[in-house]
Amino acid sequence: MAKNTSFKASVTAPRGFRAGGATCGIKASGKPDLAVIVADGPCAAAGMFTKNKFPGEPVKVCKRHLRTGFVRAIVANSGCSNVCTGERGQRDALEMCRLVAQSCGLKAGEVLPCSTGVIGKYLPMEKIGRGIPALCAKVGRGTAFDQAAAVAIMTTDLVPKSAVRRVKIGGSTVTIGGIAKGSGMIQPNMATMFAFLTTDARLTPTQCKTALREAVNTTFNRLSVDHDTSTSDTVLLLASGASSNKVLDAKGLAAFTRALTELCGDLAYQIVKDGEGVTKVVRVRVTNARSQRDADKVGYTVTGSPLIKCAVHGGDPNWGRLVAAVGRSGAAINPRKLSIHIGEVCVGRDGQALTHAVKVQNKLEQTMKKSEITFTIDLGMGKASTEWLGCDLSKEYVSINADYTT
Amino acid sequence: MAKNTSFKASVTAPRGFRAGGATCGIKASGKPDLAVIVADGPCAAAGMFTKNKFPGEPVKVCKRHLRTGFVRAIVANSGCSNVCTGERGQRDALEMCRLVAQSCGLKAGEVLPCSTGVIGKYLPMEKIGRGIPALCAKVGRGTAFDQAAAVAIMTTDLVPKSAVRRVKIGGSTVTIGGIAKGSGMIQPNMATMFAFLTTDARLTPTQCKTALREAVNTTFNRLSVDHDTSTSDTVLLLASGASSNKVLDAKGLAAFTRALTELCGDLAYQIVKDGEGVTKVVRVRVTNARSQRDADKVGYTVTGSPLIKCAVHGGDPNWGRLVAAVGRSGAAINPRKLSIHIGEVCVGRDGQALTHAVKVQNKLEQTMKKSEITFTIDLGMGKASTEWLGCDLSKEYVSINADYTT
Repeated sequence: MAKNTSFKASVTAPRGFRAGGATCGIKASGKPDLAVIVADGPCAAAGMFTKNKFPGEPVKVCKRHLRTGFVRAIVANSGCSNVCTGERGQRDALEMCRLVAQSCGLKAGEVLPCSTGVIGKYLPMEKIGRGIPALCAKVGRGTAFDQAAAVAIMTTDLVPKSAVRRVKIGGSTVTIGGIAKGSGMIQPNMATMFAFLTTDARLTPTQCKTALREAVNTTFNRLSVDHDTSTSDTVLLLASGASSNKVLDAKGLAAFTRALTELCGDLAYQIVKDGEGVTKVVRVRVTNARSQRDADKVGYTVTGSPLIKCAVHGGDPNWGRLVAAVGRSGAAINPRKLSIHIGEVCVGRDGQALTHAVKVQNKLEQTMKKSEITFTIDLGMGKASTEWLGCDLSKEYVSINADYTT
Repeated sequence: MAKNTSFKASVTAPRGFRAGGATCGIKASGKPDLAVIVADGPCAAAGMFTKNKFPGEPVKVCKRHLRTGFVRAIVANSGCSNVCTGERGQRDALEMCRLVAQSCGLKAGEVLPCSTGVIGKYLPMEKIGRGIPALCAKVGRGTAFDQAAAVAIMTTDLVPKSAVRRVKIGGSTVTIGGIAKGSGMIQPNMATMFAFLTTDARLTPTQCKTALREAVNTTFNRLSVDHDTSTSDTVLLLASGASSNKVLDAKGLAAFTRALTELCGDLAYQIVKDGEGVTKVVRVRVTNARSQRDADKVGYTVTGSPLIKCAVHGGDPNWGRLVAAVGRSGAAINPRKLSIHIGEVCVGRDGQALTHAVKVQNKLEQTMKKSEITFTIDLGMGKASTEWLGCDLSKEYVSINADYTT
């Protein structure tokens, strides 16, 4: 099991949830590959999914099962994504739900199935058929159970990812917990990533949707490891309501959404940091764009540029590559108004490179050597801004991805 | 000097042109960095340039000097792109033209300046001021001169690139020659690339434009090394008219455009093959798309996917990554109609993975080991098709780009 000494109780930190993880033999490596999160009662729920036009079969089932607005459990496996598997894949995803339902006394329609891993292979249903009842029989609460679940959804991740937030709303304390996975094929619209979020706040299904959309759009949808969008990305929020008998009011929902966004931001950072072959995290702040869309175009293009990623990897303050990326982003640009900072050092102002004294040049080189680098790109065109998370491109990334399926 | 035993007489193969290359000290490496192509008389001319919103100063001057439709010379340097250099950069680009004009007895407005290399640095005008007259004094015709010019525009290229085509039009033989450079930051809309094309066909400036646009759109605009668009990309066509006294008629122009397109395709292939760290060339054929735009979206996305590029590098027939890329391309897709071939082996039909016998699996693995691989992606949605050129992503690419400026 991967070690993460900072792992926190997360999905079972809110009241009303149990979780667990196990090895059922889907992965040839013999590593954990099956996770469940089960709620004690019906939860208001919402999900956000990949925008890829080839969604996995489990994604389709999740969407259907979320239509009532209430669910009871999540079942997830790694090692096989159940994508491009047609009717048999659809049946297999439903069978996973049925197995959980049978073991936990639920209806199959109250279970959300998720699969991640290789595309175009069928799930080994015999193994899963033995694995799910065994796992459901030993779910529990606390750090060890949450970590087992977080580890079981890992693919090329090196560490399990979790986060927890507590926020006072009205008279009661609300807890939000989450686990996540995702390492390569990560780009906006959630890529190959899962995040399973639980809370004991009492929300309506519509409130779940609203809060989740806002949190995801400014966190998971603003990160990029490699600009590849997977077919299985799934973020789920389950609200048990165990903290209160009263549904959140508008003010309470706003406070909840802020905490949820913070938690998602935390998980997003963990995902980028553990990105395939990543040695450095890059924050791209875009300021004074003409529109939000323009700001995000620049954030997207800069975090996606292989040349910038290589420069970051090599610690090369190559501001020309930043200029080139901004210029091809599609955002409204006036070359004479562009200014760029690397960390605290201004490297270009009014569209022209600055020549620095040796002292400043040294500071710049020091900045580029850090494990986290911030680029601030001021377009000088308006008032919109954004912040994206990206990473470097290393030889390790190539190694990991040059030989994955076979 | 880089060796290329297959180098052909190219830009001086058509009658009416002389060329040359030299070292004037722009590059710290002491490698050749200055090239000129000079015509004996006025040439009808056209150019196509980067769509990046931060075009280099030379690009702006080229566009202005092409307004008359006639020019006499191209002067190009490598080692410094003269981008983000403001008014001083503009003056430097004009000074390069003036120096050529003075040496060759032309007007400065008849000279097209091109610069490639690091962004945000000023040109060393003292060195260029000595270099241009010396180079202009010794231009000539033939393979050695063309190769010297082709070598002098190289940046991270490993080999100089050239091509020549001859075509009978009416009673006379027309020759088209070209040299090109470009290795990284290559993506549609020409990226960091130059192609300088000469011909002795007699064309009007408008005919030059038409032929060039058609040739570039299906060749240089359909290749991708790393999805980064540079700020200096320039393709220039100069037509001396030395082969005939009569301007081409419609049929002649069509024949000329076909030959020009073939020549550009040849240069485009050479550019991808010599892409930074490239070990394998990938052809992506997209068929039966609903529209041309859709076909090109798929070609663009597949050639740009880091995951597919890594899979190609590792020889991994990972068709799932192809499916994921097609699904996120933005093209109209029906998952049940998608079929994919790798080489001659069908790996997925009607949106589902195919399981192969060992013999076919072996053939697939052999195909992936070749230095050129073709993916055929049949969308089954309509009648449009396209072909894109891409390449693998190697550790070498990371090495080259992790430490370029400093």
